[in-house]
Amino acid sequence: MTLIELLGVLAFAFTGIIEARKKGMDLIGVYGVSMMTAFGGGTIRDLLIGHYPLFWIAHSNYVLILLGFAIVAALIKAEFYENPHVNQAFEVLDALGLGLFATVGASIAQQNGCDFYISVLLGVVTGVFGGILRDTICNEIPNVFKRNELYATCAFLGSTVLLGGLQLGVDVLHATLVGIAVTVLLRLVSVKYRIKLPF
Amino acid sequence: MTLIELLGVLAFAFTGIIEARKKGMDLIGVYGVSMMTAFGGGTIRDLLIGHYPLFWIAHSNYVLILLGFAIVAALIKAEFYENPHVNQAFEVLDALGLGLFATVGASIAQQNGCDFYISVLLGVVTGVFGGILRDTICNEIPNVFKRNELYATCAFLGSTVLLGGLQLGVDVLHATLVGIAVTVLLRLVSVKYRIKLPF
Amino acid sequence: MTLIELLGVLAFAFTGIIEARKKGMDLIGVYGVSMMTAFGGGTIRDLLIGHYPLFWIAHSNYVLILLGFAIVAALIKAEFYENPHVNQAFEVLDALGLGLFATVGASIAQQNGCDFYISVLLGVVTGVFGGILRDTICNEIPNVFKRNELYATCAFLGSTVLLGGLQLGVDVLHATLVGIAVTVLLRLVSVKYRIKLPF
Repeated sequence: MTLIELLGVLAFAFTGIIEARKKGMDLIGVYGVSMMTAFGGGTIRDLLIGHYPLFWIAHSNYVLILLGFAIVAALIKAEFYENPHVNQAFEVLDALGLGLFATVGASIAQQNGCDFYISVLLGVVTGVFGGILRDTICNEIPNVFKRNELYATCAFLGSTVLLGGLQLGVDVLHATLVGIAVTVLLRLVSVKYRIKLPF
Repeated sequence: MTLIELLGVLAFAFTGIIEARKKGMDLIGVYGVSMMTAFGGGTIRDLLIGHYPLFWIAHSNYVLILLGFAIVAALIKAEFYENPHVNQAFEVLDALGLGLFATVGASIAQQNGCDFYISVLLGVVTGVFGGILRDTICNEIPNVFKRNELYATCAFLGSTVLLGGLQLGVDVLHATLVGIAVTVLLRLVSVKYRIKLPF
Repeated sequence: MTLIELLGVLAFAFTGIIEARKKGMDLIGVYGVSMMTAFGGGTIRDLLIGHYPLFWIAHSNYVLILLGFAIVAALIKAEFYENPHVNQAFEVLDALGLGLFATVGASIAQQNGCDFYISVLLGVVTGVFGGILRDTICNEIPNVFKRNELYATCAFLGSTVLLGGLQLGVDVLHATLVGIAVTVLLRLVSVKYRIKLPF
């Protein structure tokens, strides 16, 4: 779980860095946006269920690692971030962060006594909230609220698969990996083929 | 109290649904906005006083009921939401939600040991915060912050009437009903006759 | 600490009042913005570390004092707030609030068991978050996120000086005063000479 969380933190931190640099922010802005993207979803989940201490306060390595990334990113030329490959990387990292955080979030909610459906919802919240903060601060309409490719829906299905699997007796590792795969693949397929909800 | 809370959740959820559908959001967007409107005020109050578990996490029926409403609402044609009667219903439901949540919020704050004036303020916060989230996400300036008809003022007076009544020895049921009536009527009268604060 | 907190509340409350009156808000709007500016940073810090009751809920005098200020401010003519001296006062009060809250925030975080770097960060959060709320509600881009004069950086250095001083054995009073002075002076110098981060 800690490994998945770390990977999710890194994936979302990079999306925050890319977005903030595209907007021409300086080191502090980049650092702030990357932290809010990486820690936002887990923080809101932990506040909602009263789960203290928050994970990034308990593991202060996270904030130091992100400081290192922000310094490197701020030193790279602004043109780099306009590169279309960077845009593609952004989409993949965002999908990855969504899947990693949604499944971790759903698991933690369930371990803290939330019932099935609330746990699924808190998985979605964990997955999408960091991106909402990132986009709001960078003055973009958040992906989740656009009539757009599937986003929250992917996290919803991924969390449901994970928790459903656990209930059917699948072991945690396999259920989690399948939950992550469902979320990430569904998101990437829906971005590629512009799949939207019918209503 | 639970009944009043349920009615408040429904009233605010409908306003969230109407606003989100007017903006052309899809099912997930409508569901998200309706939940934030319905649960936002109570959540911020509970976080501020450290009152766990949050009411909608403890009663997971709420989130399932709202899912049902969101599905029905997303199936209804977009033109329906442009209807002027729907706009009137929006104002009445919003006033009702304001009154129901302000009085419940003030009571809960007082039961958790807040003093008179802080309880009144937390009543106002409970009443207005869901609408602030709804309007911010839907890119409208929140009602509370416009130089406009009375809004927070109504919740302020309603909460004061309730808590003042309790202090004067009125029983909870009557004090609550009068508090709700004061808030709702004052809001509707002020919308109808465009009453504003003098300064 | 309580005195420093009170001064910080007053300084930030005034900046909230000035900003809200400039936007033409009425009494309730001015009151709301002044409370969010003055209590926002401390509230988010206390929520993040799970430190209850929140300081403004425990000391209800604060909210009553701000109500008095908001009434006086709402009675003063709108032209007053366009005065360039008021703008200068705004900058000084904002710098003062930043320094006072950053040092108090870092101390409280450390007393609640956060390690050195997390405490510095929570000092920054306490210092800047009230201003973020104020500017977001008043539809301005928050100072922190603009490529602009130093802002969060000042709070970062001030908090580091305070906590570093404590670790080196300096007494709390002197370390706090130096931390505040570093933050405020750095901010004012950087506003006057338009000093920015190099990247």
